[in-house]
Amino acid sequence: MNTTVSDTTTEAFRLAMRRFAATVSIISTTTEDGACHGMAATAVTSLSMDPLSVLIAVNSTASLHGPLSEIGSYCVNVLHATQRKQCEVFSSKKDRDKRFDSGNWDIKSAKSPFLIDAQANIFCTVERMVDCGSHTAFIGLVDEVRVDNSVAPLIYLDGGFLKETEAAFRLPHGVGAHGNDVKGNARQLEGIEWL
Amino acid sequence: MNTTVSDTTTEAFRLAMRRFAATVSIISTTTEDGACHGMAATAVTSLSMDPLSVLIAVNSTASLHGPLSEIGSYCVNVLHATQRKQCEVFSSKKDRDKRFDSGNWDIKSAKSPFLIDAQANIFCTVERMVDCGSHTAFIGLVDEVRVDNSVAPLIYLDGGFLKETEAAFRLPHGVGAHGNDVKGNARQLEGIEWL
Repeated sequence: MNTTVSDTTTEAFRLAMRRFAATVSIISTTTEDGACHGMAATAVTSLSMDPLSVLIAVNSTASLHGPLSEIGSYCVNVLHATQRKQCEVFSSKKDRDKRFDSGNWDIKSAKSPFLIDAQANIFCTVERMVDCGSHTAFIGLVDEVRVDNSVAPLIYLDGGFLKETEAAFRLPHGVGAHGNDVKGNARQLEGIEWL
Repeated sequence: MNTTVSDTTTEAFRLAMRRFAATVSIISTTTEDGACHGMAATAVTSLSMDPLSVLIAVNSTASLHGPLSEIGSYCVNVLHATQRKQCEVFSSKKDRDKRFDSGNWDIKSAKSPFLIDAQANIFCTVERMVDCGSHTAFIGLVDEVRVDNSVAPLIYLDGGFLKETEAAFRLPHGVGAHGNDVKGNARQLEGIEWL
């Protein structure tokens, strides 16, 4: 049953957002002093195909906001269903300076540190910062991409994670290979052209 | 195994995006002549909390682009796992003028048409249009929100949908209620503050 929300619009918006299943990524960057900075995020979306770009929304109070603004490049590390621990480490304010000790990070081979066994690593240069109030949208032009062979992302919904075993095992049954499950060719669909 | 992609960056980016599980929404609007326009989309993200805003990325060649630019308001209808047919209708170029004949649409009670039994309806006024090349980012200030009691969104991954039965039934087991599944309080986590 749908009901018009009588609570504040803010609370209703939060509830609506909890109904969005979102893939968890870690946004990472390195400042000029060589320090690595990173944060788990779900507000990540593909933006345009020409030029290739993505957008991340970062709260101005987040520890990553300053480094991102300063250095102007970042990597979107798309987490695998098995990397829930990485999400927790990069979300907790405890031991913030030890975040990159957890997981298989390469902090030397590219401009931004990247999680070697993530689902994908999308390296970006900030093209524009759009001030949106509490958050800044960092529009990044895509420089380089690494992808993993598997398709089993870490999915966050309603304040929790989908179980990794379910996320990993249901894919061969639940998802059509290369768009077969969608009428026609998924790449020709309006609005879902990315996938 | 991860490998550095030797294919074009564009193709690698497409593969990376296929590894993002995304919730499917229908973006809807009404032009001044009373005609309804809509499109299925996955490039939708929450943007800021103050003011409440969302962002949608729309290809400039999409039929919805003109109406959205003209009228400056839209609704994000977050699809329920059972509304796969709506996604297909609003993605296919066939019978584009009959899209709103399918499903339980209210085209009169609000500024934008809305799918009554969606997971959520987020009504927005376009605050800014950011030209990003092939796509335009429509930043929308949130005017009003309707939410459904259930939490079972339609999820798109790797060119197909997760099975609706799995999406609906696994939630009580796979997802912690109100963030219990996450260490600490999900709302206090950096970067995942929304959910």
